Amino acid sequence: MLKTWVRPARPEESECKQRLDAARDRLEALQLEVKAAGLPVLVLVEGWGAAGKGSMLGRIIQNIDPRFFTVTSMSAPTPEEERYPFLHRYVKAIPEAGKFAFLDSGWMDQVVKERLRGELEGQAYARRLQSVLRFEHQLTDNGYLVLKLFLQISRKEQKKRLEALAADPDTAWRVSENDRWQNKHYEECEDVFDDYLRATNLPGAPWYIIDAKEKKWCEVQMLETLCSAIDTARRNAALAVPLLQNTFPLVSMPKLAQVDLSQSLTDEEYDARRKALQKRLSVLHNRTYRKKVPVIIVYEGWDAAGKGGNIRRVTAALDPRGYQVNPIASPEPHEKARHYLWRFWTRLPKTGHIAIFDRSWYGRVMVERIEGFCTENDWQRAYNEINEFEAELADWGAVILKFWVHIDPATQLERFKSRQNTPEKQWKITDEDWRNREKWPAYEQAVDEMLQKTSTQKAPWHILPSNDKKYARVKALEIIVDTLEKALGN
Amino acid sequence: MLKTWVRPARPEESECKQRLDAARDRLEALQLEVKAAGLPVLVLVEGWGAAGKGSMLGRIIQNIDPRFFTVTSMSAPTPEEERYPFLHRYVKAIPEAGKFAFLDSGWMDQVVKERLRGELEGQAYARRLQSVLRFEHQLTDNGYLVLKLFLQISRKEQKKRLEALAADPDTAWRVSENDRWQNKHYEECEDVFDDYLRATNLPGAPWYIIDAKEKKWCEVQMLETLCSAIDTARRNAALAVPLLQNTFPLVSMPKLAQVDLSQSLTDEEYDARRKALQKRLSVLHNRTYRKKVPVIIVYEGWDAAGKGGNIRRVTAALDPRGYQVNPIASPEPHEKARHYLWRFWTRLPKTGHIAIFDRSWYGRVMVERIEGFCTENDWQRAYNEINEFEAELADWGAVILKFWVHIDPATQLERFKSRQNTPEKQWKITDEDWRNREKWPAYEQAVDEMLQKTSTQKAPWHILPSNDKKYARVKALEIIVDTLEKALGN
Repeated sequence: MLKTWVRPARPEESECKQRLDAARDRLEALQLEVKAAGLPVLVLVEGWGAAGKGSMLGRIIQNIDPRFFTVTSMSAPTPEEERYPFLHRYVKAIPEAGKFAFLDSGWMDQVVKERLRGELEGQAYARRLQSVLRFEHQLTDNGYLVLKLFLQISRKEQKKRLEALAADPDTAWRVSENDRWQNKHYEECEDVFDDYLRATNLPGAPWYIIDAKEKKWCEVQMLETLCSAIDTARRNAALAVPLLQNTFPLVSMPKLAQVDLSQSLTDEEYDARRKALQKRLSVLHNRTYRKKVPVIIVYEGWDAAGKGGNIRRVTAALDPRGYQVNPIASPEPHEKARHYLWRFWTRLPKTGHIAIFDRSWYGRVMVERIEGFCTENDWQRAYNEINEFEAELADWGAVILKFWVHIDPATQLERFKSRQNTPEKQWKITDEDWRNREKWPAYEQAVDEMLQKTSTQKAPWHILPSNDKKYARVKALEIIVDTLEKALGN
Repeated sequence: MLKTWVRPARPEESECKQRLDAARDRLEALQLEVKAAGLPVLVLVEGWGAAGKGSMLGRIIQNIDPRFFTVTSMSAPTPEEERYPFLHRYVKAIPEAGKFAFLDSGWMDQVVKERLRGELEGQAYARRLQSVLRFEHQLTDNGYLVLKLFLQISRKEQKKRLEALAADPDTAWRVSENDRWQNKHYEECEDVFDDYLRATNLPGAPWYIIDAKEKKWCEVQMLETLCSAIDTARRNAALAVPLLQNTFPLVSMPKLAQVDLSQSLTDEEYDARRKALQKRLSVLHNRTYRKKVPVIIVYEGWDAAGKGGNIRRVTAALDPRGYQVNPIASPEPHEKARHYLWRFWTRLPKTGHIAIFDRSWYGRVMVERIEGFCTENDWQRAYNEINEFEAELADWGAVILKFWVHIDPATQLERFKSRQNTPEKQWKITDEDWRNREKWPAYEQAVDEMLQKTSTQKAPWHILPSNDKKYARVKALEIIVDTLEKALGN
């Protein structure tokens, strides 16, 4: 793309000035449409060192109310950031609905730098591109406008600018080693950039190459591109997004109705097996820490199925410095305003840590589906989105365990009644629990579909028969211990 | 404290076991009282290396529902964390109302380590202690239970444990250089610990020294201390907190009624002075970045006084990579559930960056006071709390600028009407603005009191007469440029 790019003719000064004024006014008006429509706008500004990314951004945002945008300036990942998946810090920076987020260079910059340093080759590079493509289409599919701008300058122009910056003590710090290196290896960089731009030129999130030689003209192009992209996104908002085919190998799962719930343990069996497994798990936790393996354990299940008690038998074996339980309730305003996976991305464990989710992103295909909190297109799409999300985590090296804690309706009724009759347990039972119980058949259908469609080989579901809680607890411990032993190569 | 500490006699095994069971049950019941009362409980577990902080914490939290607590494990600050004030990462970790936050070593650990390494001496150590004391009383004054436990073991016991840990490859990584160093320099450490414990032994947040030689007995002491502290905190909740005297040198401020609002600029004067100041500010922004000086600019003012436009004339001169505008609306649930300064602590600039607050923590003594969102005791106390907060920031090296953007009621009315009659400005005017307008006299009284009580020498207020917006913008730029020039030593 870059190498075949034909520089557009710069219009006359008077036309340029007139278009600039018009585009500024247009953006100032459009920000209110963006706000009213709840459109989240993510603008990625990439380009050559010294192309003027920062200063152009400074001009663009002058036309937007500070309440409606954020600017995130991305540099090399910190050691802390390196303990999360590649996309983590970019996902964190996505805008809320109705707002703009500007990224002063982003995931492209990181990918091409790593590639130029020889740290990302062959399969690893291909996987990285796949991550990027999934991320971008997950955003656009969920109504995000993803606008990608590449600020282009020639080798000569870059050289001139770097020399001017270096000459002034107040700006010399802006010239990085990387900028100098780029200028020296301009053609090599151009190849890598071009390759990346072509590979990520999605119809839903295409690249726009901006001629950045002259400031006013550069601003005109950026503003006009932004305004027209907002117009397109507003028109697209009404259209349903096509569902993607599942491309992940699935594990076959039984229907809930076929699950044997009769299994149980005596107190003695329970105590003996639980203690042995906890001891083993405790040792394995030390190993995951040492080997820096991140572990993600998801608990879903019927109300009163015994998720909480089950989780506590697991955490009893863990060092509290190395795990976190994330209880998931309904999203807060700043969470609801973003992609539904955002609040889970921001709760991932670091490498070597364990995150336990007490309820999870599967709310999308259960409660949100049944209560109509999202459209049918949204939850139908979510199976693939979730599989992609978990594939991303698995590629990063995470061990993923997903439990469905299962009981039958009679057992649930019994436990509800017992909770209501026990003063210190009453807080655990709410009117909503009773309402959900009435929707058992709808939930069962949704759960069956979820188990069929999201039990991938890298992140399979495990059903825990929990009419007898002791049985379910030992079963969970067993599965965790087995899985970790396999993952750690003993 | 540590050196005069007399080890309590360990009870007989049977009594120990019985007290342990009782304390566990008690905590399990108390967590619901904590939840119902909205009591935030911060438990700091400090102590010698290998005293068992982590494993004891692991036991304690088994008695609490994972929805009600977090555990934060603090290690040495990362380079990113070092770009914020010392307290920043601890403030971030405070619990929500009705929840527990456990810190596996915290600010004591950091302070004593820095002191032992010779990085914190004399005045710097004294200032650090002051920070800690202010932080703790700000928490307890605002209804937090701050429980500080120090796990004590002898030199011999520590040595034994370190050797046992080191002998097992699965646990060897837990023995840090620092642990070994401590054991070698046990007495020197004991002196520094003792000094710190005595200096921070506040009546509202005293230290409890826990005999950590034997696990079961250690757990009994920790649980019993925690339970009895919760009981005390519950009783204290009903009591008003004494107001502290102001101890910060104040700058005298005029009453709003005395402010001359007649000043104005012609368009030509405005353009010329604004441009010159913006150019200067742009250079100064580079310098603050290079010198790593954090800058905090607060905008408060009447509705329609012109805060937004004023801020934009400032940001027009700044590199977007180095500043952030924080528009402050009413707090979200997770923010409201914490100390009212928490959401500002978490929005501070890094060193070298500028944070502009469009409305701020002064909401406490304005809207929260007038609308009754907090008690009189709360807002009366807030003047000192805010002065302490800003002193903390100033000690860290921040430049703090606070603007009151001032207009008279007639000008406001005119602007409200103009907003209502201009379609693209209608979103800026709400029913609430009209309601606030009716409360002008109450607000004026509150603002006058705020200006009198919080204009400290290190963080003075500046009143910007804004009947003529152009005048106010140039004035703001002038004050910012002057202040930065002084701070940067030209």
